[in-house]
Amino acid sequence: MLHLNVFLFGCGHHRAAWCHPDSAAERLGDIAWYESLARTAERGKLDAVFFADGHSAGAFGMGSDGPLWYLEPLTMLSAMARATERIGLVSTVSSTFFTPFHAARMLASLDHISGGRMGWNVVTSMFDAEARNHGFEAMPDHAWRYARAEEFVEAVLRLWDSWDDNALIVDRRAGDYVRPGAVRRIDHRGEHFRVDGPLTVPRPPQGHPVMFQAGASEQGRDLAARYAEAIYAVAYDLPSAQAYYRDVKRRVRAAGRRDPVPIMPGLVTYVGSTEAEARAKQAELDALLPTESSLRQLQTFIDQDCMDWDLDAPVPPLPPLDAFKGPKGRYATILRIIDTERPTLRQLLGRLAAGGGHCTMVGTPEQIADRMEQWLREGGADGFNLMPPSLPHSLDDFIDQVVPVLQARGLFRRDYEAGTLRGHLGLARPVRKT
Amino acid sequence: MLHLNVFLFGCGHHRAAWCHPDSAAERLGDIAWYESLARTAERGKLDAVFFADGHSAGAFGMGSDGPLWYLEPLTMLSAMARATERIGLVSTVSSTFFTPFHAARMLASLDHISGGRMGWNVVTSMFDAEARNHGFEAMPDHAWRYARAEEFVEAVLRLWDSWDDNALIVDRRAGDYVRPGAVRRIDHRGEHFRVDGPLTVPRPPQGHPVMFQAGASEQGRDLAARYAEAIYAVAYDLPSAQAYYRDVKRRVRAAGRRDPVPIMPGLVTYVGSTEAEARAKQAELDALLPTESSLRQLQTFIDQDCMDWDLDAPVPPLPPLDAFKGPKGRYATILRIIDTERPTLRQLLGRLAAGGGHCTMVGTPEQIADRMEQWLREGGADGFNLMPPSLPHSLDDFIDQVVPVLQARGLFRRDYEAGTLRGHLGLARPVRKT
Repeated sequence: MLHLNVFLFGCGHHRAAWCHPDSAAERLGDIAWYESLARTAERGKLDAVFFADGHSAGAFGMGSDGPLWYLEPLTMLSAMARATERIGLVSTVSSTFFTPFHAARMLASLDHISGGRMGWNVVTSMFDAEARNHGFEAMPDHAWRYARAEEFVEAVLRLWDSWDDNALIVDRRAGDYVRPGAVRRIDHRGEHFRVDGPLTVPRPPQGHPVMFQAGASEQGRDLAARYAEAIYAVAYDLPSAQAYYRDVKRRVRAAGRRDPVPIMPGLVTYVGSTEAEARAKQAELDALLPTESSLRQLQTFIDQDCMDWDLDAPVPPLPPLDAFKGPKGRYATILRIIDTERPTLRQLLGRLAAGGGHCTMVGTPEQIADRMEQWLREGGADGFNLMPPSLPHSLDDFIDQVVPVLQARGLFRRDYEAGTLRGHLGLARPVRKT
Repeated sequence: MLHLNVFLFGCGHHRAAWCHPDSAAERLGDIAWYESLARTAERGKLDAVFFADGHSAGAFGMGSDGPLWYLEPLTMLSAMARATERIGLVSTVSSTFFTPFHAARMLASLDHISGGRMGWNVVTSMFDAEARNHGFEAMPDHAWRYARAEEFVEAVLRLWDSWDDNALIVDRRAGDYVRPGAVRRIDHRGEHFRVDGPLTVPRPPQGHPVMFQAGASEQGRDLAARYAEAIYAVAYDLPSAQAYYRDVKRRVRAAGRRDPVPIMPGLVTYVGSTEAEARAKQAELDALLPTESSLRQLQTFIDQDCMDWDLDAPVPPLPPLDAFKGPKGRYATILRIIDTERPTLRQLLGRLAAGGGHCTMVGTPEQIADRMEQWLREGGADGFNLMPPSLPHSLDDFIDQVVPVLQARGLFRRDYEAGTLRGHLGLARPVRKT
């Protein structure tokens, strides 16, 4: 059984999606727009909707040529919880910029509001511009951020456990609202935080809102192995997905855990009734890309002048990875795209503008279902975090055309069987640690 | 014209309200319960609903003999915004525990979600138990907190002004989402914060969500005079309300401001078709008070043994204020209640258990409207922050019985004339500071 989340992002994950005449570019501040997307995802019986988060305008490749950023995710998800009934709701929360008490309280509150459907994707944040909005001179280094993240997670989990599940007795005659001894301080003292507790909110319906992680670095994978209950991954193709999958599942077992920890790589899809129609949808978005700024961006990625290259000719050969002096990750992705897809320059710009290093599947519902099934059966994924290149169209296409094929093959639920996100993901409700 | 807010708090402001057989004590974690209260308030055309906030379980007199605390207000208000159409939504936000960027972003997001109906009540927080949930060893001193609050407010206002009102142009052909130069950094550097900006959210529909303040101290009054657009006050009777009103309006003028700055003292009401019926409602709640713990609390307030006093006999005379060595504020209130109401011991415990030093009005709708009108006409108030002793009953009584009398007298709106909280309160939309 696949798990499917959808990563909602602006007008879609394609950087030029907002320029499409049908885009909702004017509605990015309109909560009804997000509610309608959540209802679409719920119609498709998806496990969850997911929001990334950034603390500076222009983070995550959003910039002056497109939407900078929009509503704050925790406040959005409360409204979206009331517009839906079953689908999970996952927000990114930065352990670098929040205190554990704020995070634990808001997430617990949202878990009550949504009736047990909240998840939190723990990130340590990355940009100096974000740090400078919260009092830092620059982003603290990676090791410091991960040490803080681990202490942050520990404190949050203990705050959620500071109330017994059955703490509320509401005995009007005796005058006892809470069972004596059922709400306790946690007295956390660590390197980064002092948190006495208890939390101001009773234990969440799920015990703990589901913890997601998306770390790709060594420290990120270790944090995920020890704490994450579900993982968002980046995998360009099946071999790289399999390598990541094996590594993280091994780390989870090495950490002594038996939880399923579903791994969901990001997935960009263009769906058509024929492969040609699907490719035409992709080309339509690619054609909206601002050529000059896209070329300038590519120039920084590959560290050579490409402003005069022919947009509709194949990308010329690039030097091998070893010879490249800049950041290797993205350059390796570009080499692989060129190697496997033989794209024109315009097609390469389009691929980089929609999901970057994530997997892209273009084709008929059956073709896409085939590849998803292969990833599932061959140890590359337990599901996918859908990254629709345009909203609502790419999401509608997936829900209306691909989901029925997956359902017919018995690979995806026909209806919700559980009432909580934890239930959708097959995760046990955590017992309170005493 | 009166302004009426309602301060939603647990099962009501009477400490024993949860023990009433009809109370919603089991529903304090149920967002539908808060939505229904907001709809009731909207039915009565009130200006706004308001939540206090505390960062420790048991703050604000909630304790082991009653509800400790519940859902987090910013997440609650997002859902409540979607359950209502016109009423304002005010959340307390602590300047001691948030960063300006978090506060500005969440409040701006909520102002977009609610279509311009958000307000924020700036507090500096007060309890050591709260500070110890956010990394402090103890609550920082009063002067430090107010200095931080002032810098916090300045940074938040500048973040809201970091986007021009017409920043979004969404020109698909030109590829311009934002008007060039319409989104700017603020580069705030102060004693307490570094905030580069810009905000990640476009300027709120109201320009700035409405700023409320409730400070009673010298520094609190000065902060209110310089920044507050509406004020929640504490006034036991009309003379003390008039003294506060005169003082704060004078400070507002001295700060060079011409805004109306409506002042709304807290108001506890017991409404009945006869005065006797109203008094019976009050007595019914008072009878639910746990005698022993209430007496023990009174003992600390008056610093003498009262455990053996007769509950149904008048309170014996107490030493004058000058002779009292403990905290004077509450003791002065107790002396005034004894002096003006000649209560039995049980009645005194009830008065202290519902709103403490706030004004209490008990009577028929006409009697209560008379007194509210007197406060309005004689310079004691521009409106009231209703503190229903029990929910939903005391709120229903006020909305269904007192509001129509106020409307018939032309003292309160028959329907909303504005779509924003700012509009309800008669406040101008702030022009962006350049």
